[in-house]
Amino acid sequence: MPSQIDLAARNKALDIIKNSMRSLVEQISRGEKPILVIPKRTLANTIYDLRKKMLLLGPEIQHRSFTDVNEAKKFMQTLLMASIIFDALRNNEYPTIRDLYYRGKHSISYKTIDGKHVSENTWEEQRESDGVIRDLEVYLSVLREDLLILSKEKGKVVGNLVIRSGDDTIDLSKMGHGAYAIEPTPDLIEFVDVDAEYILVVEKDAVFQQLHRYGFWRKYKAILVTSAGQPDRATRRFVRRLSDEYKLPVYILADSDPYGYYIYSVFKTGSITLSYESERLATPSAKFIGVMMTDIFGDSVFRKIIKDKDARKTLEEIAPGVSELKPKNPYLSESERSNFVIKAKTKDLERAVELVGYKVADVCIEDKDVKNKIKKKEGLTGYPWFSTPEWTRELCIFFNTLSKLEIEAMASKGLKFLADKYIPEKLSIGDWID
Amino acid sequence: MPSQIDLAARNKALDIIKNSMRSLVEQISRGEKPILVIPKRTLANTIYDLRKKMLLLGPEIQHRSFTDVNEAKKFMQTLLMASIIFDALRNNEYPTIRDLYYRGKHSISYKTIDGKHVSENTWEEQRESDGVIRDLEVYLSVLREDLLILSKEKGKVVGNLVIRSGDDTIDLSKMGHGAYAIEPTPDLIEFVDVDAEYILVVEKDAVFQQLHRYGFWRKYKAILVTSAGQPDRATRRFVRRLSDEYKLPVYILADSDPYGYYIYSVFKTGSITLSYESERLATPSAKFIGVMMTDIFGDSVFRKIIKDKDARKTLEEIAPGVSELKPKNPYLSESERSNFVIKAKTKDLERAVELVGYKVADVCIEDKDVKNKIKKKEGLTGYPWFSTPEWTRELCIFFNTLSKLEIEAMASKGLKFLADKYIPEKLSIGDWID
Repeated sequence: MPSQIDLAARNKALDIIKNSMRSLVEQISRGEKPILVIPKRTLANTIYDLRKKMLLLGPEIQHRSFTDVNEAKKFMQTLLMASIIFDALRNNEYPTIRDLYYRGKHSISYKTIDGKHVSENTWEEQRESDGVIRDLEVYLSVLREDLLILSKEKGKVVGNLVIRSGDDTIDLSKMGHGAYAIEPTPDLIEFVDVDAEYILVVEKDAVFQQLHRYGFWRKYKAILVTSAGQPDRATRRFVRRLSDEYKLPVYILADSDPYGYYIYSVFKTGSITLSYESERLATPSAKFIGVMMTDIFGDSVFRKIIKDKDARKTLEEIAPGVSELKPKNPYLSESERSNFVIKAKTKDLERAVELVGYKVADVCIEDKDVKNKIKKKEGLTGYPWFSTPEWTRELCIFFNTLSKLEIEAMASKGLKFLADKYIPEKLSIGDWID
Repeated sequence: MPSQIDLAARNKALDIIKNSMRSLVEQISRGEKPILVIPKRTLANTIYDLRKKMLLLGPEIQHRSFTDVNEAKKFMQTLLMASIIFDALRNNEYPTIRDLYYRGKHSISYKTIDGKHVSENTWEEQRESDGVIRDLEVYLSVLREDLLILSKEKGKVVGNLVIRSGDDTIDLSKMGHGAYAIEPTPDLIEFVDVDAEYILVVEKDAVFQQLHRYGFWRKYKAILVTSAGQPDRATRRFVRRLSDEYKLPVYILADSDPYGYYIYSVFKTGSITLSYESERLATPSAKFIGVMMTDIFGDSVFRKIIKDKDARKTLEEIAPGVSELKPKNPYLSESERSNFVIKAKTKDLERAVELVGYKVADVCIEDKDVKNKIKKKEGLTGYPWFSTPEWTRELCIFFNTLSKLEIEAMASKGLKFLADKYIPEKLSIGDWID
């Protein structure tokens, strides 16, 4: 019943687990204490690789020894999880991480040295078993999808693209008004034929639906993808592979707010807590096409701010060149702005400070009360990949205007405006942030 | 660029709006005060139709007069929204409800009788403009989808089903490991060919992925659908149409908790706040196949409770026949139960009381502290469609055990168990709740 592709993937995964565990068996048969050596998945061991432009795991490793009382439980959990996944692979199953949590959850009863009977759970919460799965991913150097672990998927795609998935050949330009829902194991997809010039990833499903219905991808030779919010792993891997294998540029269209910027960041750089996946999931060449703060307000606000010598000096120290950016005109009129713009919340502000650091906020926020509100974030310096002139200007305007804008607002100016002017014009003049 | 199907839908919608608004124009040209007559969308005017087995709008209507100072704003909003939608239809656009909010949002300045200049916004929040869209739907007797208003969609489908959507013919048995993402306007889909015996709707996308990958729909001739949580309108309409047009039974597989039961209820009966849609969106013949409390615990707990004469009397008054239900054996062993079951939260309890009423809770809850917690819900009598012997027993066990269970737990007993035993066995012996 399952496709040959799945069978091959299964056998490959079984081999990987077998080979990796062999060293343990050898340690034991040599009479040594069994020890697992696993790269450390801590924040301190997460580095931003400037050359590769992505978040990666650093060089630190950890040891998990079966005979160390502090490590024995983690050692047991790791082997338990490996054996559950191994069994699932052998039994033609497709577990989810939730499944794996349930499958492994049970009580172990044992007698302590002083003769007491004790009972302990393998794990209490899914958070624990998820951590073990991540450890296994870095230990085995595979993604969980390679182990045929499935998950909920939200990503959709349409465009001039023919793929092979399972035993089927699917023409993604023939999806009618619907779309193709990306499978949870995108590495098993074979790209058969692509006739497109770029990939446009839209954060919002509803805007994806509109552009699709409008015929955008056909008219502009685009592959249209939506992540339907924060992107899942499969959507990120799908975009990365398609971009790599056909040298297609990737543009991200998201809301103009720190949440939208972060979605872009996850596509491009990787996720901070799962940096070990970046090497295969991140698309470092992805560009943010909008919606930009400068699309809403132009940059007059910003130019006013950097007229102040001290402000300019501070911002130049953070992002050299920020005061020499080309001026930009807004796409929205004064009255459109007043109808479309949403007031930023404290949560947005705090997230923005996380992105570019406290100093940009301090220089650009005018309102004293608001300034005081984020005082507690004073230590934050922002992510290196947001310390560029363009992002500094964007966030500075955000802090100054305390405003955000949804993509829908651009569509409400007319779908024609969004599809035939805003996106194509920005693409043709290169008005994106890299 | 847009398909002929969309053009036809557009023209039909334009005609509907034109014809409905004509009476207003005639009132004005006769020198009468223009009045809109709209069915009332209040909770008090929402009735459960026992024969049709769905929630419907009652007979009450409301008048909105342009010259009544209390109704003038609502009158203006309704006409404003109608004109925005009319323009969007004419301009080949596909607005979302968020768009429509933005498009209509602006300030109206006018001079009051005593000469003051006043400025007022057409609407402040999307909640307001959404209400106006609902009013228009009942006024025009159409669904918003008929007006080509699009929305975010989560529903997916695979199976032996060929459809026509837009200009394409799509074979939903050839989706590889992915799936077909249902379009936002499911009434424009043409079902070309179906070779299936029933529709299985799975609440959870991850379980849908597992069953799909396992080849469940092929082996058991099912159309496999997921709502990915609370179902959106398109998924409900798609299931309803497919079930109607091919006389296919519909089975819902959801988590065993009040949230899962409610998802079933929305599919079957309609949503309480949007009862005007039920006539086209609800599937009154839909059956709940699981996960049932009796699948987890059997019914011994329940039989113990109704041994008490008073308890039996109370429950029989609510759901006559509840004490004569056939006994049921659980699918889970004692140890599986202890690993899989999740403790219900106060929120779950309160929602369960909403479903079946306070009396069932009062009779079945043992824990005094818990009983006190929900005392404040004493007035609630539950929804009529949950006052059946089967649901009363289910919820009674829920109240007694204060437990819930996810579908994933059934899959973690083995995907084979879920796909080849649990679902087929329950279907073959008719172990569902209607």
